[in-house]
Amino acid sequence: MLILLKSGASAVQIEAISARAKELSLIPQPVRSGSLELLSLTGATAAVDPAAFASMPGVARVMNLSAPFRLASREFRREDTTVDVAGVRIGPGTFTVMAGPCSIESPAQAADAANAVKAAGAPVLRGGLYKPRTSPYSFQGLGAEGFALMDTLRAQTGLRFVTEAIDEQSLEQVEAHADMIQIGARNMQNFSLLRRAGRSKLPVLLKRGMSATLEEWLNAADYVLSGGNPNVVLCERGIRTFNTHARNTLDLGVIPAARELTHLPILVDPSHGTGRATHVPAMACAALAAGADGLLVEVHPDPGHALSDGDQSLTPERFNALMKLLRQLAPAFGRAL
Amino acid sequence: MLILLKSGASAVQIEAISARAKELSLIPQPVRSGSLELLSLTGATAAVDPAAFASMPGVARVMNLSAPFRLASREFRREDTTVDVAGVRIGPGTFTVMAGPCSIESPAQAADAANAVKAAGAPVLRGGLYKPRTSPYSFQGLGAEGFALMDTLRAQTGLRFVTEAIDEQSLEQVEAHADMIQIGARNMQNFSLLRRAGRSKLPVLLKRGMSATLEEWLNAADYVLSGGNPNVVLCERGIRTFNTHARNTLDLGVIPAARELTHLPILVDPSHGTGRATHVPAMACAALAAGADGLLVEVHPDPGHALSDGDQSLTPERFNALMKLLRQLAPAFGRAL
Amino acid sequence: MLILLKSGASAVQIEAISARAKELSLIPQPVRSGSLELLSLTGATAAVDPAAFASMPGVARVMNLSAPFRLASREFRREDTTVDVAGVRIGPGTFTVMAGPCSIESPAQAADAANAVKAAGAPVLRGGLYKPRTSPYSFQGLGAEGFALMDTLRAQTGLRFVTEAIDEQSLEQVEAHADMIQIGARNMQNFSLLRRAGRSKLPVLLKRGMSATLEEWLNAADYVLSGGNPNVVLCERGIRTFNTHARNTLDLGVIPAARELTHLPILVDPSHGTGRATHVPAMACAALAAGADGLLVEVHPDPGHALSDGDQSLTPERFNALMKLLRQLAPAFGRAL
Amino acid sequence: MLILLKSGASAVQIEAISARAKELSLIPQPVRSGSLELLSLTGATAAVDPAAFASMPGVARVMNLSAPFRLASREFRREDTTVDVAGVRIGPGTFTVMAGPCSIESPAQAADAANAVKAAGAPVLRGGLYKPRTSPYSFQGLGAEGFALMDTLRAQTGLRFVTEAIDEQSLEQVEAHADMIQIGARNMQNFSLLRRAGRSKLPVLLKRGMSATLEEWLNAADYVLSGGNPNVVLCERGIRTFNTHARNTLDLGVIPAARELTHLPILVDPSHGTGRATHVPAMACAALAAGADGLLVEVHPDPGHALSDGDQSLTPERFNALMKLLRQLAPAFGRAL
Repeated sequence: MLILLKSGASAVQIEAISARAKELSLIPQPVRSGSLELLSLTGATAAVDPAAFASMPGVARVMNLSAPFRLASREFRREDTTVDVAGVRIGPGTFTVMAGPCSIESPAQAADAANAVKAAGAPVLRGGLYKPRTSPYSFQGLGAEGFALMDTLRAQTGLRFVTEAIDEQSLEQVEAHADMIQIGARNMQNFSLLRRAGRSKLPVLLKRGMSATLEEWLNAADYVLSGGNPNVVLCERGIRTFNTHARNTLDLGVIPAARELTHLPILVDPSHGTGRATHVPAMACAALAAGADGLLVEVHPDPGHALSDGDQSLTPERFNALMKLLRQLAPAFGRAL
Repeated sequence: MLILLKSGASAVQIEAISARAKELSLIPQPVRSGSLELLSLTGATAAVDPAAFASMPGVARVMNLSAPFRLASREFRREDTTVDVAGVRIGPGTFTVMAGPCSIESPAQAADAANAVKAAGAPVLRGGLYKPRTSPYSFQGLGAEGFALMDTLRAQTGLRFVTEAIDEQSLEQVEAHADMIQIGARNMQNFSLLRRAGRSKLPVLLKRGMSATLEEWLNAADYVLSGGNPNVVLCERGIRTFNTHARNTLDLGVIPAARELTHLPILVDPSHGTGRATHVPAMACAALAAGADGLLVEVHPDPGHALSDGDQSLTPERFNALMKLLRQLAPAFGRAL
Repeated sequence: MLILLKSGASAVQIEAISARAKELSLIPQPVRSGSLELLSLTGATAAVDPAAFASMPGVARVMNLSAPFRLASREFRREDTTVDVAGVRIGPGTFTVMAGPCSIESPAQAADAANAVKAAGAPVLRGGLYKPRTSPYSFQGLGAEGFALMDTLRAQTGLRFVTEAIDEQSLEQVEAHADMIQIGARNMQNFSLLRRAGRSKLPVLLKRGMSATLEEWLNAADYVLSGGNPNVVLCERGIRTFNTHARNTLDLGVIPAARELTHLPILVDPSHGTGRATHVPAMACAALAAGADGLLVEVHPDPGHALSDGDQSLTPERFNALMKLLRQLAPAFGRAL
Repeated sequence: MLILLKSGASAVQIEAISARAKELSLIPQPVRSGSLELLSLTGATAAVDPAAFASMPGVARVMNLSAPFRLASREFRREDTTVDVAGVRIGPGTFTVMAGPCSIESPAQAADAANAVKAAGAPVLRGGLYKPRTSPYSFQGLGAEGFALMDTLRAQTGLRFVTEAIDEQSLEQVEAHADMIQIGARNMQNFSLLRRAGRSKLPVLLKRGMSATLEEWLNAADYVLSGGNPNVVLCERGIRTFNTHARNTLDLGVIPAARELTHLPILVDPSHGTGRATHVPAMACAALAAGADGLLVEVHPDPGHALSDGDQSLTPERFNALMKLLRQLAPAFGRAL
């Protein structure tokens, strides 16, 4: 940590800053850069909040030289991590597509979706049973009763199943019935939920919060990782901006940026990232080209009748066509579907 | 709900949209505006997701004419609501200041803060026991052991106490020991937590999410209100933008906008809204002038030693000076501290 | 245009709104949607500012049913436009790469860059002579004296040349020496400059403003088109968001969205869109996959010595490798380099 | 300037960075902070683009320790600047209200507006003759023919007149007829226009760009100041965010932040900052409370008939009431209207 001192900082002020650093078990050392005076603080800086110094008299700016996340960082682990979802690999060399409806709505809809996903060759079925909805008056998901349905479909199709947990109770159900726990964008900083996921044996799909920086996202991953669960897959799903042409602004540029900082795999959700089914194929291909490890994509047997997010769901036909295109493109990017 | 049809929409497409509307118990009626064709859908539109129509062939745009939130709306209740926090009123005619440290850190720090808050004349003490922190390696709050400390301080000072709940378990503790439940910005769309707060007898302080629209915020309030808890106070605390001059961008313009849509009281948190103690007094006065019903403001007996957010905490002296200034200004805005 | 009336709007208020509409040569007609009352206004609505009604008593909301831009719209021209830059085509079936240094700095640097661009097979050389720089103390470009240099290089290499105009005077020089006029992001709403470009015979490369919506961008295109210049090429270069991992947030999702609304070609600038040379190849491929018609990419013979934007410039070697990869990928997207 | 080296940076890489620094007339010196290695670069760093180093091998991060703007900074001038607009002072101790219609539309409208502004006690009339409009089909202002009208009104009322220049030609007309040159938000980085304004004898009102950081805004001021014109007044008018409740997000928090960095006066435009006349009085008072030096506010004798921005214009009655309120409040903030 480096502290840039104000030009007129007094000796008493500098002494107070140094004393504060020592209290926090840091070692302060004066540094000069031309006419500017700085203090270098070394030791266990990651546990120290820069705010501890920012308001002290004589301080112009506090610069954190090391990122606060550890276990998610390339410094902790240099090689790319491959996460195993009940035998399905997510990581380098593969391009893993997880597909299915936004919400599981009925036995018939779920079966049609699962069959469409399997027929198109995607190995993982997605589908929400607990839906975080903006309005309390919208459909909130089938809840617990949907798990039996999914058990049957998993057994019949051999597909793996990923679904969202929204609190401790639903997370326990997901653990008992699914192959991967999804943490949604709205819960990316629900730290109680992250800690609970960190104690799970199942891999975790961690969606990016809609206004989360890359650093905050990797800090959220560290909540799970530091709980003892090494299997975290990131998922970019669009951020909130001033744009009105799409539901969210899909930030594909975060992929090469994340690759530099973290060893964790990254998926892209072009369905939430655009909000428009007709824009999904273009952005799915762009995600592959930008270096993603796979997709989370919404497929519904009858999007016009979906109880949620129908406007961003692909039909089975369009999904099948997309899978063919991705299979053709993947080798150029060193990947196989 | 109005559906604008594409210029070349076919009779078959229009028929399909009408059929879908009827399935959802809505009544479709054709409407013309010059050369443009629309369908008006009436009935219980609030429970219907516009996405049900947005992706159907022939649809150009779906316009929701009524806001999805109900109980928070001026249409549900025309007069301003006053919320009672164990005898302290928040609403028209008053300007209620809730102050205290970001985190409760120790008996001495808490006592000094409480005494400073009381001495300056603020009726409610704020202080975090469960802290949602971006990094898992930062101080996470005293947790459960802090409640006994707060019980003592409440008894000694007569101050009311508001503190944050981050999950069901902590909410139960807050209910048992505090006078008001704070739902933090990161949990504004933690719908399980909102539903649980809706079943509480305590009033709820609902902070705005850092990328939440006003409509989403009022929907979140409806989660609490529809659970049976009518006592919700909103709190603007800054939104996330491209700005770098402040920790968040305090959106005071949301106050007059919210006044038109909702009857609920609104506080402002200038501490998180700026992140800089030296900017807090200006924005606290601006909040009063913009029409806020009060403040949530950070005060720490020794900001340089705070375990969190020290750079945005006022000293007792500066807080006292701010309270004097607010007391002087309030009557011009029809309020009293 | 549709006006949603407030629930208690009086007959007098509605009459006033109708009268105002008639003054503006619009035809008002009452429309009902269930319990809601609306007024449909038809006629030449594109020339009418919705603000004319928004503040009138009794008005709840004004909805513009038709987009304000005309000549850029698919309704004006259904088929994709191909723009010709001195024989180089930009549009469907091709993928046109424009490359070169951020700034033209010296005869040697310009020659090295031009040779590298030509050797890699890109047909258009980019290079700034007038540089809009955030600080007045930064290098501002060679200005007028650079044009002679570019004349020589164009003659020697056969490359087309695109460079930025920042005011009327520089636009006249660009017209005299280059093959295409670039309008930079900061000038996307410099309407005097757009009008002047609309009177030019040269095609125009119109970069998106850093906080421009798609609709505003197409309105800017209409300024050029309505001046009589039909040759406008759009260029996405990243928008401003809260992100810190990149200089700008490259909004590739705008490509499929723009395709629906406009017939104009769209390029992508992954250099400004990321600000990091190491991220450029991934985003260049993603742009192709998302449906772009080409790239604007920075190449510098010695990025470490660039007078501007060195950190986002590719070396000739990396650019050559990128061109090979794009040439290999393009056919899968129905394009050829 | 400080360069943080990558952990594995080689001696050859560090040597290359040092050599590059020396070429740019900077003095490199190694600095250590615990296990981290840095290079301190001193000398005329303000003229050096950090990008010159950011892409070099071995560089992890480049930190600029000094702000790039000079003449606008508190370091250049410690005391607050007062700008004189033909005898009307803008700066400490005063609260200067500039009011009038968005556009000058006709002799009658201009006269009514001017009389209303004068009657309410505001000393400066605002009114656009050249209007930067998003669509080329919207009313673009009266242009040159309006100046004669304004000459008459100035003579009759004694009001000072501020109006916008959008290019060199209109700036010359503004110089000849008005008392202050307005540079609009869309032209905040029109550097040719800023340089031209820097050569003017008239004071300049520099509106903040809709996605400009505070630092970029002060750099824009430096373009004017470094041209020899010391009379720059800043004007905050709202930034672009994800918000939908207002036309722009008025960033009042920028006022205390700017006060620390610059000596220039700052006005606030609550009309553009909200886009809704009913929200203007609250935000006007909030601007005063936040420390602004005055307002730029839209007043129209008949907002329902305004040719532009009618929905955000106050009627003469509401403006008069606002002026009375401000006059009453100002002394508490050490100001007088």
